Amino acid sequence: MDSVDFDALEQEAQARMAPASFAFCQAGADDEITAAENATAWRCLRLRPRILRDVATIDTTAIILGRRTRTPIMVAPTGRHRLFHHDGEIATARGAAASGATFVLATNATATIEDVAAHRGDAAQWFQLYLSDRAIAEGLIDRAAAAGFAALVVTADMPVYGSSPRAARAPLKPSDEIRNVNLPGAPIARNAYDQTFSGSTTYPLSLKDLRWLVGRSPLPVIVKGVLRGDDAVRCVEAGARAVIVSNHGGRHLDTTVTTAAALPEIAAALGDTAEVYVDGGMRRGTDILKALALGARAVLVGRPTLWGLSVRGADGVRDVLEHLRQELVRTMALAGVASVAEATPDLVASCDRRAP
Amino acid sequence: MDSVDFDALEQEAQARMAPASFAFCQAGADDEITAAENATAWRCLRLRPRILRDVATIDTTAIILGRRTRTPIMVAPTGRHRLFHHDGEIATARGAAASGATFVLATNATATIEDVAAHRGDAAQWFQLYLSDRAIAEGLIDRAAAAGFAALVVTADMPVYGSSPRAARAPLKPSDEIRNVNLPGAPIARNAYDQTFSGSTTYPLSLKDLRWLVGRSPLPVIVKGVLRGDDAVRCVEAGARAVIVSNHGGRHLDTTVTTAAALPEIAAALGDTAEVYVDGGMRRGTDILKALALGARAVLVGRPTLWGLSVRGADGVRDVLEHLRQELVRTMALAGVASVAEATPDLVASCDRRAP
Amino acid sequence: MDSVDFDALEQEAQARMAPASFAFCQAGADDEITAAENATAWRCLRLRPRILRDVATIDTTAIILGRRTRTPIMVAPTGRHRLFHHDGEIATARGAAASGATFVLATNATATIEDVAAHRGDAAQWFQLYLSDRAIAEGLIDRAAAAGFAALVVTADMPVYGSSPRAARAPLKPSDEIRNVNLPGAPIARNAYDQTFSGSTTYPLSLKDLRWLVGRSPLPVIVKGVLRGDDAVRCVEAGARAVIVSNHGGRHLDTTVTTAAALPEIAAALGDTAEVYVDGGMRRGTDILKALALGARAVLVGRPTLWGLSVRGADGVRDVLEHLRQELVRTMALAGVASVAEATPDLVASCDRRAP
Amino acid sequence: MDSVDFDALEQEAQARMAPASFAFCQAGADDEITAAENATAWRCLRLRPRILRDVATIDTTAIILGRRTRTPIMVAPTGRHRLFHHDGEIATARGAAASGATFVLATNATATIEDVAAHRGDAAQWFQLYLSDRAIAEGLIDRAAAAGFAALVVTADMPVYGSSPRAARAPLKPSDEIRNVNLPGAPIARNAYDQTFSGSTTYPLSLKDLRWLVGRSPLPVIVKGVLRGDDAVRCVEAGARAVIVSNHGGRHLDTTVTTAAALPEIAAALGDTAEVYVDGGMRRGTDILKALALGARAVLVGRPTLWGLSVRGADGVRDVLEHLRQELVRTMALAGVASVAEATPDLVASCDRRAP
Repeated sequence: MDSVDFDALEQEAQARMAPASFAFCQAGADDEITAAENATAWRCLRLRPRILRDVATIDTTAIILGRRTRTPIMVAPTGRHRLFHHDGEIATARGAAASGATFVLATNATATIEDVAAHRGDAAQWFQLYLSDRAIAEGLIDRAAAAGFAALVVTADMPVYGSSPRAARAPLKPSDEIRNVNLPGAPIARNAYDQTFSGSTTYPLSLKDLRWLVGRSPLPVIVKGVLRGDDAVRCVEAGARAVIVSNHGGRHLDTTVTTAAALPEIAAALGDTAEVYVDGGMRRGTDILKALALGARAVLVGRPTLWGLSVRGADGVRDVLEHLRQELVRTMALAGVASVAEATPDLVASCDRRAP
Repeated sequence: MDSVDFDALEQEAQARMAPASFAFCQAGADDEITAAENATAWRCLRLRPRILRDVATIDTTAIILGRRTRTPIMVAPTGRHRLFHHDGEIATARGAAASGATFVLATNATATIEDVAAHRGDAAQWFQLYLSDRAIAEGLIDRAAAAGFAALVVTADMPVYGSSPRAARAPLKPSDEIRNVNLPGAPIARNAYDQTFSGSTTYPLSLKDLRWLVGRSPLPVIVKGVLRGDDAVRCVEAGARAVIVSNHGGRHLDTTVTTAAALPEIAAALGDTAEVYVDGGMRRGTDILKALALGARAVLVGRPTLWGLSVRGADGVRDVLEHLRQELVRTMALAGVASVAEATPDLVASCDRRAP
Repeated sequence: MDSVDFDALEQEAQARMAPASFAFCQAGADDEITAAENATAWRCLRLRPRILRDVATIDTTAIILGRRTRTPIMVAPTGRHRLFHHDGEIATARGAAASGATFVLATNATATIEDVAAHRGDAAQWFQLYLSDRAIAEGLIDRAAAAGFAALVVTADMPVYGSSPRAARAPLKPSDEIRNVNLPGAPIARNAYDQTFSGSTTYPLSLKDLRWLVGRSPLPVIVKGVLRGDDAVRCVEAGARAVIVSNHGGRHLDTTVTTAAALPEIAAALGDTAEVYVDGGMRRGTDILKALALGARAVLVGRPTLWGLSVRGADGVRDVLEHLRQELVRTMALAGVASVAEATPDLVASCDRRAP
Repeated sequence: MDSVDFDALEQEAQARMAPASFAFCQAGADDEITAAENATAWRCLRLRPRILRDVATIDTTAIILGRRTRTPIMVAPTGRHRLFHHDGEIATARGAAASGATFVLATNATATIEDVAAHRGDAAQWFQLYLSDRAIAEGLIDRAAAAGFAALVVTADMPVYGSSPRAARAPLKPSDEIRNVNLPGAPIARNAYDQTFSGSTTYPLSLKDLRWLVGRSPLPVIVKGVLRGDDAVRCVEAGARAVIVSNHGGRHLDTTVTTAAALPEIAAALGDTAEVYVDGGMRRGTDILKALALGARAVLVGRPTLWGLSVRGADGVRDVLEHLRQELVRTMALAGVASVAEATPDLVASCDRRAP
């Protein structure tokens, strides 16, 4: 595989996508401070590489929900892939499978659960759920389980929609092509942001809801959108098997802590009681090694997979994932880290560490 | 109500206002470091949102001086509203009333206490006092009390005028239209800055003055312009019911601490002995939630209300206040905060919090 | 006196001065990091103003070497004033006298000790000494004492010349007009920087030299160029009556600590055993109040006095000093500080102080 | 010697070199964050100069591996000098000898060990080794020892090549002229970066390898590429006589800690058990004094020596080294430091040190 220049890829994606699609892909809430800071936070951390280690073989396999997986890099759940490529989530699933990466299919997908499952290959697939109507949720959960999805990822950080000036300037037009095909009636996808706030909550996931989900789901439940140690503990006490440290890519609430800043607190709070994953702004193998060092078992990548999808379909998704994995291999070798298990917090220092 | 873009509103206000009026509205002391830093200080704080909370209903009501108020957003006292709109403070009062927001009328108003009171609606109104001549002050206090104003806000941070290069480049010309109509003889308003410093003090509020005011005023007294915990305690010991953490919008003394930096110290110093409000640089619902989390019961907004006033009169003031309140509702929901009482300091982290 | 805009004054000075003179005035060592950072360090400190204080009268008098002085602002020693105005140090002395400010005459002056003394007025004058040949030094000291100078300021931080790329690009040409008239033979002034380092020391003031000076001088000795608490203690133990916290305006050694950063350490180390003054980058009344709060009894201003000198001679020097003093009065009033003695460290916080 | 302006020299070098050679010289890994930050980290440290010291004579001699050396500035090992000047490493060796500086010859040299040795003069020479095939290594070590090289520097921080977008845009073409003449068969030098990562390790130096080297080498062994105290201790326990704190100029792993940040930890970990040197981003005498103060016995300079080499051959290398040494002399005098032994950590403060 050729090397992937993410800056060039992002530009090519912008050229390929309709302006509203690109705006929807890139958007962050309000002033997009968090959307940008997620990336700079990883970049700003400093590596303390080890030497004199045996790095003749670099092992990137990760144990994710008890399953050995080729790569610790997963495809984050994002909606409406047909905005970016006519094959939509089918292409994404194929690209992920080609890299052995776990694909997290979104509730707002434009391909059916069953069609996506058919392109799983040897990789795992998880299903992301926005919980609103419980009956609808039960249908989705049962279909996902029947289709062999391995986990349920419930999003907890978007009880209401945020507002994005960028998206408002280039709004998505409802289209007969872009439907939430897994929902009853396959409705045309409508607003993804709520510029003129109605005040009504959208997906107000309560602790009671989470407990119900855990009881109802035949699949292990993972909570996405955790930024605090206390909340992570509550998730696990309610039965969650893992949490995803996430601020939703900065898309709905601006000026939150970055995921790089939140990760150590959450990893410390959970210890060995549950698995921790993280998303938000990772663009380099160095970013990923830092995340693993600070307590994540795996990472999720969002926007770059959509860039790859828009430019080269399934192959583009695969190339993005493979490029990151190969950067991770190189970074691990250069940092004296032979396996994911050897990635420990001492590898990372903050930018502020200055002599003396 | 349509969404309000404050950057666009500020530009529109600049186009509407006379250059000297706009300069007077925007001006900060000296190099305008504090005027700008007030805003960046809020923006720079990081939210630690909660999940799994019941946010089906968001309650923005605040208990302010023992009164339940629809919104924790108040209109900060600013002078000479007829510079910005021909209806002056009457329009501002109407806009505030439409949002249920407390309006703080300034000593240097261009509408009478009684006329403003007539447009109060169901909201509260407070009267801001610059204390110079005690006899004049007594007249103002008694009129405010008679007109149903609910509190007296005495400004403590401007014993002399500051200097503003921006205002000096576009000086306000004395005009027959712009009079301090509540002062004896309704004098034409003159300098608001003192470029060629005369050395004489203007409003040198001493502790003795404050004690006299508390004794003399039938209304509860609030001290505006507090930036230190020790001073806040002195205010309350002298009988003040509340304090407003403020650096006067950076208009007179440059390079002070920001109000975001001063607020926690003052809230800690006062505990439950008095109420704390804060002003300075809040432009987003996220800013306001941070202020509430750090110990403010309510916030005051200055310049944006004048922008709204200049562009659409009473409706513009209302739109600014409603927009901020709706951003606050959205932010509270996204942060897992159902009521003002749930806004506690753990919601906020500094920018510097970095892993590990 | 009209207000003085230092930025405009600096530009006017540049227009008036020969390019080499302006380069000599402005130059800093190497990359001019310290020359610039001295100013930003004061600006970056934050004031914590007091309220409810009696500031009806602001007293800027300072006790300097036991003498009550109208203003805590002194004229820093700088050389070759005839580069900037044909009246040279005579004009500077007259300007300082008009403001009641202490003028520190430099060894490298272009006016004689006796002529400068004749324009002292009611203010104090001090004499700055570069110690090289002891016999020459004795002559200068005795003349200064005989002419009524009140103190001897010995510069300790320039054992060799630094290098300035700015000065190298516009080198001073030796001129018959610019002579060190107080040195034997009144030699033409030559290089002030040493671009092609010869390796030989110039003014290597040792502790032994300082002790000799203290014993020899009928005047109290002040050491200029102190940046460390331990060195300040050594100065005082050797008999110095005071120290000047200074990095020589960043002119010879780049990337030193700023004087704002060094001042608190030195004030703490000396306690009441000696007086502390500070120079470097003060351009505002707020800067000066911060310096007084952090332990300086008085401050010295260098480049701005040369700007004033070049533009309006004695009147320009006076205007610069008066403008700063009036900004200081205003700042003290706004900060609730009625006298220099009330300027204590609690008035100042660092930029980094963030909530919570 | 004339003063050397490094910015001008770098520009002249760019004009002289082929674009691919210049890119190879300047390149850093990935986003070149570390390559740039190495330099800013030294610049950002602040000096706390001493006064009243005897600096009549400045002694820059350093004890390096038990040998008194004229200057603490060494020439860092860099490869392929014939890319920069037709005399290649011969010119570099002559320039280093002229300054009495230790020259570290690289494995990837384009001149033979024996030819370089012939131009040693009175200075020391060391040999840098990339360990891959042990038999080849033994040949190199024995030749270096036979040719009078005084130490073996083994590079430990490049088990695999990094990736450089800058180098990829202007790739080195294999050329008959640029051969690794010390390797068997004198192969044409090929890729120095690995844009399309093959996954195979290149120089994976293990602890076992290091022990073998120490046992096999008749020369003292120095480990280059240490960034952690624990690794430094392991090196010394394995028999290394010294370590070089280095991140390889940021050329292979991006976003590591800077060498300025790593140095104090390593110096503290080793104490008196081994010597410590440092490279990376030093461009000023002030940078070098800071490195000496924080625990380095000597420093290594890389890219600037190549700039000098390309512009003036041996004389250019000498001028760069002499310029730095003279800046160091001047800095030591101005900081009150008469000898390398007097350079202690109290001379340095971080940028962040702010009052109070």
